[in-house]
Amino acid sequence: MRLSRYFLPVMKESPADAQIVSHKLMLRAGLIRQTAAGIYAWLPLGHRVLRKIEQIVREEQDRAGAVELLMPTLQSADLWRQSGRYDAYGPEMLRIKDRHEREMLFGPTNEEMITALFRDGARSYRDLPRTLYHIQWKFRDEVRPRFGVMRGREFLMKDAYSFDLDEAGARHSYNRMFVAYLRTYARLGLRAIPMQADTGPIGGDLSHEFIVLAPTGESEVFYHSNWEQDRALEVDADDAAALQSFVSSLTADYAATDEKRDEAREVVAGDALKQSRGIEVGHIFYFGTKYSAAMGLKVQGPDGAEVTPQMGSYGIGVSRLMGAIIEASHDDRGIIWPEAVAPYKVGLINMRVDDAACTAACDELYMKLTTAGVETLYDDRDERGGAKFATMDLVGLPWQIVIGPKGLANGVIELKNRATGEKTEIGADEALARMRA
Amino acid sequence: MRLSRYFLPVMKESPADAQIVSHKLMLRAGLIRQTAAGIYAWLPLGHRVLRKIEQIVREEQDRAGAVELLMPTLQSADLWRQSGRYDAYGPEMLRIKDRHEREMLFGPTNEEMITALFRDGARSYRDLPRTLYHIQWKFRDEVRPRFGVMRGREFLMKDAYSFDLDEAGARHSYNRMFVAYLRTYARLGLRAIPMQADTGPIGGDLSHEFIVLAPTGESEVFYHSNWEQDRALEVDADDAAALQSFVSSLTADYAATDEKRDEAREVVAGDALKQSRGIEVGHIFYFGTKYSAAMGLKVQGPDGAEVTPQMGSYGIGVSRLMGAIIEASHDDRGIIWPEAVAPYKVGLINMRVDDAACTAACDELYMKLTTAGVETLYDDRDERGGAKFATMDLVGLPWQIVIGPKGLANGVIELKNRATGEKTEIGADEALARMRA
Repeated sequence: MRLSRYFLPVMKESPADAQIVSHKLMLRAGLIRQTAAGIYAWLPLGHRVLRKIEQIVREEQDRAGAVELLMPTLQSADLWRQSGRYDAYGPEMLRIKDRHEREMLFGPTNEEMITALFRDGARSYRDLPRTLYHIQWKFRDEVRPRFGVMRGREFLMKDAYSFDLDEAGARHSYNRMFVAYLRTYARLGLRAIPMQADTGPIGGDLSHEFIVLAPTGESEVFYHSNWEQDRALEVDADDAAALQSFVSSLTADYAATDEKRDEAREVVAGDALKQSRGIEVGHIFYFGTKYSAAMGLKVQGPDGAEVTPQMGSYGIGVSRLMGAIIEASHDDRGIIWPEAVAPYKVGLINMRVDDAACTAACDELYMKLTTAGVETLYDDRDERGGAKFATMDLVGLPWQIVIGPKGLANGVIELKNRATGEKTEIGADEALARMRA
Repeated sequence: MRLSRYFLPVMKESPADAQIVSHKLMLRAGLIRQTAAGIYAWLPLGHRVLRKIEQIVREEQDRAGAVELLMPTLQSADLWRQSGRYDAYGPEMLRIKDRHEREMLFGPTNEEMITALFRDGARSYRDLPRTLYHIQWKFRDEVRPRFGVMRGREFLMKDAYSFDLDEAGARHSYNRMFVAYLRTYARLGLRAIPMQADTGPIGGDLSHEFIVLAPTGESEVFYHSNWEQDRALEVDADDAAALQSFVSSLTADYAATDEKRDEAREVVAGDALKQSRGIEVGHIFYFGTKYSAAMGLKVQGPDGAEVTPQMGSYGIGVSRLMGAIIEASHDDRGIIWPEAVAPYKVGLINMRVDDAACTAACDELYMKLTTAGVETLYDDRDERGGAKFATMDLVGLPWQIVIGPKGLANGVIELKNRATGEKTEIGADEALARMRA
């Protein structure tokens, strides 16, 4: 993409109302703009990152055998009355009346709707087990939205729902998602620690939050230092016993949020006990028949008798993850995107737009990079070099290629690694080859 | 995808409340379910088609040089007060109050928000021309939602907005979109006719609707029979004069909706004048400075003087297109998907799940097809052959491969073309080769 034809309104100064670094950088780097309290527009660069995060989340859901569909944003109040949650849910639920005065709401989550859809479509034990998911905008009317997309009101969430014939099956589905979540975070360049959690308004018996450590996090968390190491996530998820034993081996290392601390286990951890703040980036629940029973979901079991399926739900805040990634990966010059979610892999800087040879060399390399499928943001604007460097560092693409008349005279261009700052002078063909790799 | 692990609740009978064929077939084939009046959940198969349509729309927008971003669904009433439309817009606007009693709305369109974002981010003539677009859920509170996704309340729309320095530039941007729309419909297997249209609540001077002919359409339309032929859409869209002349040559053939009939031109058309009903699948507008002036969007012109940009907006109903495609492509057994938007390219039917050799042959071909990247829906369920045939015809994948013990004994399987009904007996490897092509 040529910057001369793009829309990337970067800001030199940190906006006064942004308190945490990810919020500041998302505004400064032209990723988002607030359009109302806690509601954001995703500018072109931010939109690209959002789609990449979403795609990684999707691929790991698919890999776990979950099936994608898409439920609408607005729901009828009557649906929520079937579970009893319409009145129980607090003021975070945005209640709406349509032109016929029918009561509706902007979905904060979808347990009721998916249960109704599955009740309509599933008949027998052969329709189970199933895990269904969607990636859709949700709304929670936070009393005090803050920290940008980390605690916004309209946010993109992946929510999955599992249906099983019995508790053992439900626990297997839960464990599948447990591992799928860890895989997802690892691909996003994040180390997330699963912690036993309260079930809150979702309800249920078993629940884990996934927490990324960050000094700006909202939760106080306590964990065994083993969690600071990378974990191998190879396990046969179709083998229920092997999967359970794998999950148990992980959770054998202590980790808990403030509300769920266990003094006895902390004593055992001893010096290995660590304390930090953390950002919640996922939450999974097993809640048995809470919704299926309330809403009359039944299927015919193998023996002909009716069975009320066991359910769980599994949420990842897709838009919030962008903030968490930036909290975990930035320096004082800007964002440092992990390659998997970078909006473009490489930023190409033309140092002298008014120099015909320099522009020809840039145009040629840009053409070759894009033809080779290397996502490239090409700064072809008539601006000072210093401003271009600052912009590229701010938006944080993994690689920068700088082409100027002096280097060209010597047959070289500069390749810079954004994370390490390392610069190499190489030929254009060599740069192309490295970027393709 | 194995049907034994999928969620495809097909219906044998036509639902009583569905009046038009696309609505009936979308319900019967398990593409959608209504969750509230005029609001639909997209079940897994329907969701796949929606994403394919969306991707074709996106690719043609990108090809036209438009830049994608994403605006939120909820907007503040104050934003709409800046243009004066908050009070002017009728009861189709869903008005909402949040927990702090702030007035908001579920966006039916985004002229105000994009103008505000561009005002915030654009400084000079060098930031123009730009066309920005997003693909996002909209809400219009229809008094009587009907025809399924054709006139729903929550719907997916691609809306683009152009910003130009002068009227000539704006007309060029308009013409670019004009051609991008025709390309989009052609790729979707639809022939859409552009017709001069009223501008309605968007306002402005110039407007075209794109109409697909269908007996169930809501509009009465009149057109020259030349529109029944395919048009070559090759033109250099960067050449403003060539593009204008191309668009003029197209619109030289008469086409008008009921409200915009031109008796003189109809007389000229003579016997070539045709009458039909049609479905609106797109609407484009040039409205000059209506929003930019009202909302104070100005940029510095090349001579230093301030310029108020000229704007246009361009909408395609992405979810509605699915209904239009089905209206145009079905028979009495079900949907016939054009390959470009088919949820899967091929349906693989195992005639005898209880026959080990038959199942082994099916499993092997399924593995080879998916490894080769051929999107395959594999009916591996323990059902009668007749039910499987009916389901495959109903869901309308372009190709069916039927594997049964009798054919296997002779070394052949059956390949069926859904559109023509033509059946061929060939070897499994030959079928694989044809599907890969």
